[in-house]
Amino acid sequence: MKQIGITEIEDIALGASLLGAGGGGDPYIGKLIAIDAIKSCGPVNLIDPDEVPDDALIMPIAMMGAPTVMTEKAICGNEYQTLYDIVSKFYGQPIYAVMPMEVGGVNSMLPIAAAARLGLPMIDCDGMGRAFPELQMVTFTIGGVKATPMALTDEKGNSMFFCNTITNKWTEDLARAITMECGGEVTISLYIMYGKTMKSYGVKNTITLSSQLGRLIRTVKDAPERLPEDVFLEGSHGIRLFKGKIADVLRETNGKFNLGHIILEGLGDHKGQSAEVVFQNENLSAVVDGQLLATTPDLICLVDAETFNPVTTDALKYGKRVMVIGLPCYHMWRTREGLELVGPRYFGIDSDYIPVEERVKGAAQNV
Amino acid sequence: MKQIGITEIEDIALGASLLGAGGGGDPYIGKLIAIDAIKSCGPVNLIDPDEVPDDALIMPIAMMGAPTVMTEKAICGNEYQTLYDIVSKFYGQPIYAVMPMEVGGVNSMLPIAAAARLGLPMIDCDGMGRAFPELQMVTFTIGGVKATPMALTDEKGNSMFFCNTITNKWTEDLARAITMECGGEVTISLYIMYGKTMKSYGVKNTITLSSQLGRLIRTVKDAPERLPEDVFLEGSHGIRLFKGKIADVLRETNGKFNLGHIILEGLGDHKGQSAEVVFQNENLSAVVDGQLLATTPDLICLVDAETFNPVTTDALKYGKRVMVIGLPCYHMWRTREGLELVGPRYFGIDSDYIPVEERVKGAAQNV
Repeated sequence: MKQIGITEIEDIALGASLLGAGGGGDPYIGKLIAIDAIKSCGPVNLIDPDEVPDDALIMPIAMMGAPTVMTEKAICGNEYQTLYDIVSKFYGQPIYAVMPMEVGGVNSMLPIAAAARLGLPMIDCDGMGRAFPELQMVTFTIGGVKATPMALTDEKGNSMFFCNTITNKWTEDLARAITMECGGEVTISLYIMYGKTMKSYGVKNTITLSSQLGRLIRTVKDAPERLPEDVFLEGSHGIRLFKGKIADVLRETNGKFNLGHIILEGLGDHKGQSAEVVFQNENLSAVVDGQLLATTPDLICLVDAETFNPVTTDALKYGKRVMVIGLPCYHMWRTREGLELVGPRYFGIDSDYIPVEERVKGAAQNV
Repeated sequence: MKQIGITEIEDIALGASLLGAGGGGDPYIGKLIAIDAIKSCGPVNLIDPDEVPDDALIMPIAMMGAPTVMTEKAICGNEYQTLYDIVSKFYGQPIYAVMPMEVGGVNSMLPIAAAARLGLPMIDCDGMGRAFPELQMVTFTIGGVKATPMALTDEKGNSMFFCNTITNKWTEDLARAITMECGGEVTISLYIMYGKTMKSYGVKNTITLSSQLGRLIRTVKDAPERLPEDVFLEGSHGIRLFKGKIADVLRETNGKFNLGHIILEGLGDHKGQSAEVVFQNENLSAVVDGQLLATTPDLICLVDAETFNPVTTDALKYGKRVMVIGLPCYHMWRTREGLELVGPRYFGIDSDYIPVEERVKGAAQNV
């Protein structure tokens, strides 16, 4: 068991923001919420998933909606107690621990705040190993786990309990309608499960991984004899896809998601080349000189070309110099069931899924 | 205590459709659902509100959404058991009776179906004494009763429980968003209450009144020595506002409500005059030759000029000959709190509320 105090928050937020693959929101706002909770209620115990008993009841915590909304419409702090009361009343038993459902700047932080405020431990596990835009997109769906019963509350005090939904996609659609009506952002507990299920289908130790990646980014220039970029790529196991300057950002919103794409002009080795990254909250595909180099569910991450700080899709700006890297996704996403949920075709990309490492190898041979 | 069997359904549906004030939907579809349930499960006991013990738990039943949707997207029949299970689990006690929340072609019928299928009695009481378009518009809101906890289910099996909402208007907005997402129509139980509350704020004996009005309409021509119109007006206590032919129907929908107005050309005594009736699900105002003769919350009802069958707003058609009558609303609606909820200004009519009987008296003196 490890402890998460204020000093640990920084690295977790930074690394989770990288694993958010462009989504998951601004780590700054998430960090403030987690730090505030730890200041008020003390540090959080992080427990290894394999230490959790089979029959322990776990309450995952997440924010649903647009993380950018949180900069204006904050969290009041009572949300976690409201969710706890609803869930424990329904199950008629106390809750053993909280857990994140995705990795990202906000949704890795809120479960820490919840754990602190509820005096519960947090499990070092999530349901994506990255961020995804819709709530049925978790490894637990592949395992046949239902998103409901699910509890939902907003900062004003409206709260509800989704007793049953016929599919996890229906949970997404119904909860999304409520999220919009509540002002674009709510706090939820879904995929409420027992320890046995979590251990069977969860993506384990992703908080620890986030922390390691955060430390890597923070210390990337500490070895003066090595190129920071090499240190970063080696430490993150990232595959360099492109390096360039953001030449254009196109944003749309359909009321539910941040959609858009960016055009990059190559720098350094990539001079003269151009690249396009398409996103729906998270980055979905990366094309370099017309060649598809990576698609969802592999992680496509933009980092600042100098500091290697992750650049989320809500922070994309003309002129920013970035490196685009690919990271292989969790193995369950590469199964047939996984690709049905989060593969390129679900997001309207007209291509079969090919793992990023194979695409890049193929592209290198074609040159 | 009275029994509602298949033969009683006809009069209740007909009379409730009149009290629906243009809204509440087609009595035909509601009737089919109630008859089907009674055929399968036997007749329903109708109990007088004053016979209900103070501590008896009451589960009101209603359809939320557009009644016209029900002609294509029906009810599956399990909805009531789903709602029962959610509500009785939450309260930890069995439910004593069901109750309607409004009077109308559909929402007077569904509680009968629910009572039959659940083997429970139905209380002769509702929360409006007519139909209204939004769910905070009940006398119980005036009494400070909350719409939540509220249970909701659709015919597919999606179900949820609104634990708490900060106001009854928030319940309306959140439940409306879910209703739209579920295809425009869901079954709900709201204002779940104990007998004491029902007896304090409910509009009593409106099922019995519906039945009497239905019989009146059915037998209006049985006294050949009297004019059917006189029999109808005397029996219904209706105030004749206009008689004419529908010359124009304008319909709009904002995704939530059926909005519109009709223009009438006068017939008989009203020859040469014209009238306009504005509606949002229910009829909101009646203007004759530029003079406002009735507004919500008084009941503005259109009936066929020959048969006196109620004409709901979804059945308005060019060329139809109708009589427009006004009926004084339940006294609680005429209080300041009542008019804030359902008075003319809430619906965008730029006039203070004046009771229909006073407006008509004033208009007669002006002539």
